Amino acid sequence: MMNELLLSNDNKVIFLILDGLGDIPNPAFGLKTPLEAAKKPNMDGLAMKRGVLGRIIPVDIGITPGSGPGHLSLFGYDPQVHEIGRGVLEVLGLNMDLRDGDLAARANFCTIKEGLVTDRRAGRIPTSETERLCRTISSNIEKIEGCEVIIKPGKSHRFAVIFRGPDLADKLTDADPHKDNKPFVHTSAKAPEAEFAARVVNSFMEKVMDLLKAEPVANGALLRGFSCKPDIQPFTEKYAMKALAIATYPMYRGIAKVLGMDVKDEPADYDEAVSLLKKNYNDYQFFFFHVKETDLAGEDGNFEEKVQAIEAVDRFLPEITGLDPHALVITGDHSTPCPLKGHSWHPVPALVVTKTGETDGHAFHEKNCLVGSAGTIYSKDLMALALAHGGRLDKYGA
Amino acid sequence: MMNELLLSNDNKVIFLILDGLGDIPNPAFGLKTPLEAAKKPNMDGLAMKRGVLGRIIPVDIGITPGSGPGHLSLFGYDPQVHEIGRGVLEVLGLNMDLRDGDLAARANFCTIKEGLVTDRRAGRIPTSETERLCRTISSNIEKIEGCEVIIKPGKSHRFAVIFRGPDLADKLTDADPHKDNKPFVHTSAKAPEAEFAARVVNSFMEKVMDLLKAEPVANGALLRGFSCKPDIQPFTEKYAMKALAIATYPMYRGIAKVLGMDVKDEPADYDEAVSLLKKNYNDYQFFFFHVKETDLAGEDGNFEEKVQAIEAVDRFLPEITGLDPHALVITGDHSTPCPLKGHSWHPVPALVVTKTGETDGHAFHEKNCLVGSAGTIYSKDLMALALAHGGRLDKYGA
Repeated sequence: MMNELLLSNDNKVIFLILDGLGDIPNPAFGLKTPLEAAKKPNMDGLAMKRGVLGRIIPVDIGITPGSGPGHLSLFGYDPQVHEIGRGVLEVLGLNMDLRDGDLAARANFCTIKEGLVTDRRAGRIPTSETERLCRTISSNIEKIEGCEVIIKPGKSHRFAVIFRGPDLADKLTDADPHKDNKPFVHTSAKAPEAEFAARVVNSFMEKVMDLLKAEPVANGALLRGFSCKPDIQPFTEKYAMKALAIATYPMYRGIAKVLGMDVKDEPADYDEAVSLLKKNYNDYQFFFFHVKETDLAGEDGNFEEKVQAIEAVDRFLPEITGLDPHALVITGDHSTPCPLKGHSWHPVPALVVTKTGETDGHAFHEKNCLVGSAGTIYSKDLMALALAHGGRLDKYGA
Repeated sequence: MMNELLLSNDNKVIFLILDGLGDIPNPAFGLKTPLEAAKKPNMDGLAMKRGVLGRIIPVDIGITPGSGPGHLSLFGYDPQVHEIGRGVLEVLGLNMDLRDGDLAARANFCTIKEGLVTDRRAGRIPTSETERLCRTISSNIEKIEGCEVIIKPGKSHRFAVIFRGPDLADKLTDADPHKDNKPFVHTSAKAPEAEFAARVVNSFMEKVMDLLKAEPVANGALLRGFSCKPDIQPFTEKYAMKALAIATYPMYRGIAKVLGMDVKDEPADYDEAVSLLKKNYNDYQFFFFHVKETDLAGEDGNFEEKVQAIEAVDRFLPEITGLDPHALVITGDHSTPCPLKGHSWHPVPALVVTKTGETDGHAFHEKNCLVGSAGTIYSKDLMALALAHGGRLDKYGA
């Protein structure tokens, strides 16, 4: 329905996404959450003067989302309908250039003895060794049955592969026994249209084993999470806005690209990120500004670091609000509570900064968001609320 | 979706269900609810130290559930999709052994004069008379067209019937005029596959009339609520947990059996019930522990009795929490507010006791649950939340 209500104007909407922002009362810190404990005069000043609070559920009650579903839902794509595969996320995270039709996979170097995968991680070989092995493979395998093979090393024993060619499909089983001391397995097609892809992947794996057979550190590779670039309606078309993504981490620029947002340069820090936003402000209507450090601190279970990450955002926030967007949303793609040291199912606090002066009159944190006037909604419905505040949605019906 | 996220581990989840727990502010008791008035130091201590509060809606807004839908939704079965028929509930309540394919019905002894049902309840004959009539029927009618007939007396004029044989279906109209002084009616098939069942039931009714034609207290029977044991995915399969039901009342053990939970013995009281829980704790991952007295007090409109029933649970609660389950949920299958003397549509207060120390910091009652961080959700979504807290759900997507 929303599609037919979209207005054409130059009103600006900014999503300031603090990855893994949501948290839970922490017994070690007086039952405060990092967002509650953080000194953030700018954010709280905004929230109290012209902030509407609420909570967003990324996927569903009790469901812990990965980064893919977390961001899909933020941008109004139903994460139970659309999917960004694990392989795709991996290559995006490594800043690889993913194109339509590409087949992506996560890969490990491994140790194989007499047909058994004795160590799926090849003793967690150092990154430098993985880089060396990837160079060997790259210089020896260029194409398989007409498909280009592009590989890039990751951390430790990990690397990623893109197969580029016509007719590649991703309905493939993992070429990975998932446990040590199980027989080496090839991939197999889960549907007839993936049979060609299975042949290409398996031929790649054979060639890799052949190339590495005399290697002391690893003599094979396991591939999993096969996925093609998903076929998703571009954001620009879905919302009639030109969209720019600004993120210091490649995976989030990658997700944005998959959704058809523009990505400019690679900001080294948030000063550069803010500069990018300012420089391009006139040319776009929607801005996705991603901050990673809140999630990293949550994953580490480091309360103080999460507080500091939020306070750092608060320091550059005036540069963003100075642009006076029609709607500014500050929230996260999911919760990463410090006590859980990982993503969680908890609803994420959300702040919509209004231009009208509408406000709940509260500081911005989980407990106030629970009683905020935007209520507890699904993340996929947040875009509509933001567009409404941004003056970008017409009335429905007469 | 949840199905693919289920983890295989031995983490324990306990549902402590206080039947009809929810209530409304009672003008005769300072606008308190029984849960609010009850002295329950253990429950409130838990809630304040590591309790997340919320409210659950059994079926939908404004909809008052029976025990069937109330429990189906608690266990994550959509009560608008799945149904446990009235006949089935009746035979379960009488502790009868219900098997796959069985056709169950509720029955009344009645008075028939010249084809008119003059008294649907045969003057509410005493239970002892119903027992005597049931013995007469049982010893004279064993099988009809190859179908076994099993009957069991209930209270006053009520009894229940199970027809056991192949090809029985439950698409049958009630063989009951539902009002006095209306013509006696047979059942009729609402679908071709139920025609055989209709013939068996009607033949049974004719034989009963024939057997009782000289009886002074009742000379016929009315049957209604025809239903077969529903075809429902077993709980164990749906959630990858072995489940044990512990209930002092047969109907709830019966519902649990229909859902494929195990049922052990028949605890005479809650001391025995707690012993059962402890004795079997290592062999199961999910426990449904049912308490009936809260509902009985609500049905009687007896505020003090409902308070006492809650306080009695509070006394044995430490025995349950002493087991240190990964998640303990305390809630009800529906509300039975004392001022209404019956089931109601009101959301039911729910407490999820966490292992992480996550807490809302409030005592457990309806008013605090309204502002609890779990929000107001549908009962059918409670399982996902419990499994999340219980560490039994994997992340969704990468």
